Amino acid sequence: MIDVDTDLSSLRRHLESAGVDGYLIDDDATDSDQRYVSGFTAPDPFQTLVTDDGVHLLVSGLEYGRAKSEADAETITRRSAYDYRELVAEHGAYGGKIRTIAAFLEDHGVDSISVPRNFPTGTADGLREQGIDITLESDGIVEEIRAIKADEELEAIRESQRANEAAMACAEELIASADVDDDGTLIGEDGEPLTSERVTEEIEVTLLRHGCGLDDTIVACGADGADPHNRGSGPLEADELIVIDIFPRNKETGYHADMTRTFARGDPGEEARRRYDVTREAYEAALATVEAGVTGAAVHDVVCDVIEDAGYESLRSDPSTETGFIHSTGHGVGLDVHEQPSVSPAGGELEAGHVISIEPGLYNPDVGGVRIEDLVVVTEDGYENLTDYRVGLEPTN
Amino acid sequence: MIDVDTDLSSLRRHLESAGVDGYLIDDDATDSDQRYVSGFTAPDPFQTLVTDDGVHLLVSGLEYGRAKSEADAETITRRSAYDYRELVAEHGAYGGKIRTIAAFLEDHGVDSISVPRNFPTGTADGLREQGIDITLESDGIVEEIRAIKADEELEAIRESQRANEAAMACAEELIASADVDDDGTLIGEDGEPLTSERVTEEIEVTLLRHGCGLDDTIVACGADGADPHNRGSGPLEADELIVIDIFPRNKETGYHADMTRTFARGDPGEEARRRYDVTREAYEAALATVEAGVTGAAVHDVVCDVIEDAGYESLRSDPSTETGFIHSTGHGVGLDVHEQPSVSPAGGELEAGHVISIEPGLYNPDVGGVRIEDLVVVTEDGYENLTDYRVGLEPTN
Repeated sequence: MIDVDTDLSSLRRHLESAGVDGYLIDDDATDSDQRYVSGFTAPDPFQTLVTDDGVHLLVSGLEYGRAKSEADAETITRRSAYDYRELVAEHGAYGGKIRTIAAFLEDHGVDSISVPRNFPTGTADGLREQGIDITLESDGIVEEIRAIKADEELEAIRESQRANEAAMACAEELIASADVDDDGTLIGEDGEPLTSERVTEEIEVTLLRHGCGLDDTIVACGADGADPHNRGSGPLEADELIVIDIFPRNKETGYHADMTRTFARGDPGEEARRRYDVTREAYEAALATVEAGVTGAAVHDVVCDVIEDAGYESLRSDPSTETGFIHSTGHGVGLDVHEQPSVSPAGGELEAGHVISIEPGLYNPDVGGVRIEDLVVVTEDGYENLTDYRVGLEPTN
Repeated sequence: MIDVDTDLSSLRRHLESAGVDGYLIDDDATDSDQRYVSGFTAPDPFQTLVTDDGVHLLVSGLEYGRAKSEADAETITRRSAYDYRELVAEHGAYGGKIRTIAAFLEDHGVDSISVPRNFPTGTADGLREQGIDITLESDGIVEEIRAIKADEELEAIRESQRANEAAMACAEELIASADVDDDGTLIGEDGEPLTSERVTEEIEVTLLRHGCGLDDTIVACGADGADPHNRGSGPLEADELIVIDIFPRNKETGYHADMTRTFARGDPGEEARRRYDVTREAYEAALATVEAGVTGAAVHDVVCDVIEDAGYESLRSDPSTETGFIHSTGHGVGLDVHEQPSVSPAGGELEAGHVISIEPGLYNPDVGGVRIEDLVVVTEDGYENLTDYRVGLEPTN
């Protein structure tokens, strides 16, 4: 965990305008809002209450000691303080949990709360039955707060990005140094076909050696790469586009990085090269547009302009297209790999401190996929690129 | 993904008795109920509707192709079929999502649904405003269905457990083969202190090489090991208890394994050895009790009996104790590392096909922690132990 000086003032203004006593999160620390507001990680759900007078945690006895030393909270209370086990014995696991949370709220003088969109309906309906008034906070205020990165968060993201670059270099080298079999299959140093799975494994081991884990990696060749969410499988081929998208998460800080490069050994053909050039032009045009005050939608439009001008479809020119530019230009990156702000038709104004990906791409099963992605932090007059990795179709080692 | 022949009949009986048209999940595939019912994994939220006539998915255009080939569903519909982008343009991201889901429900003739406890309050309250009647399914019926493992699920868990054993062997060997410095610090082959972090890294690389990722690993020495959720940090020491708890997840199948061993180089002292023997006795007594028809609570009571008879506290003898046996005896393991059934005071009847951990432990900051954990599948007349790893305090290589 890194110690972030969180500014919850906009959340407290919301409490006042909504006329409620507190804001409640009921989740484990895989929920990034929970992790950010509580400053605490635990594998099982716990409750974080934000009131005018501070942040208050309700945790199991098992987590109490660690919460006391790690959490960023004014008070930390164990469930046993509200007779949790007795309540579970009387009302079952679900009824006991609800009554324990209700007692915790009462203890803090709270009888009305607002909750995030992903707040469990079970807890909401249960607390309503206990007489707690519940309002939905549907704007995602905590996500908005999280979108602006403090210096220590930027440092954490940079650290993840360094790991990302080491892993990408490892993957690029494997592809660059592979032999090419008569049938076009890339052959690794061990004489076996170089597969997506093999490259992914080396990427992930490299990330682990740099303190990062990850949920998934994309090493997708040929038609696999034309589906932006396909992770790729099987032997890599010469003369085909290979999309490599790596989004590691530092295991200690929890912050992500995100980067994509597209490579081809041999000659992927004129159309593939043209698509690479158009994608690169769109990527450069998007970057040139990024600055505080510009909307994510405007940055996305610039990408659509370049792509449509080159004669390809986008979801803007054809909302039902399955080829061309079929996703958003980018997204915020932080504790979540996809978070606010959005660089898409729905994207609002960018602000200094937003960390976003810029990742145009072009897809067609007959040609393959191209995607080029950097990670940048928005500044008042442009951006700082957090990515230090060459853009180029031909892999080098 | 493995192809599990899911039996949703108990969920459909619930629909009938609750008098609702369908059961709706709104989550990404990190929610194991979502993954299990839909047979699909996607990083962003999608909707799964279970009705009398089948399982129906609502996905983004980006996921549509993969969903068609991978999901276990009767129908798969893209959000664009309900004018998602237009609705988002008119009502914002949240309002657009809600109206799209409402249109999807209407399309399937559904105007009343039941939802799981962790269903997002934002979606529930939004759909209520759209006239959908929402009932909370508070028993966790899908978790109950998931608790009984089909043969292909057992096979997947066995595969994760083989990876776990390879990783544990790697960790044990590092500890067994370390030199001991004059001050008691274990020294690795490279001449550097052997730390929790170093052992964890080798465990995780071994797991990756076996196709498994993981969220966390515990390698906790001395007082660190006395806090069951402390992951451990810093140099490992001779004459101290070292708790190693590994819970990998196969990256392809999503199924977990879970195993703990406790080691000590040198002499951890008489009290630590006694605690090891008592924990082992409790572990063996618990295993001897496991069979279909016995409750998880009864298995837990057997562990408490052994531990209390030896003169240590448990949460049964003192609900506020912070030392002794301070957690449950075990939990179900599957797509979640902690799932149904519970082997705790709240644990109901075990059934054949339940996969559970048996993991008694004893904790005291002055002595350290001991925990011994195996993974077993409950059978009609006992259990099959899925764990193939020696129990013993002294590490060997």
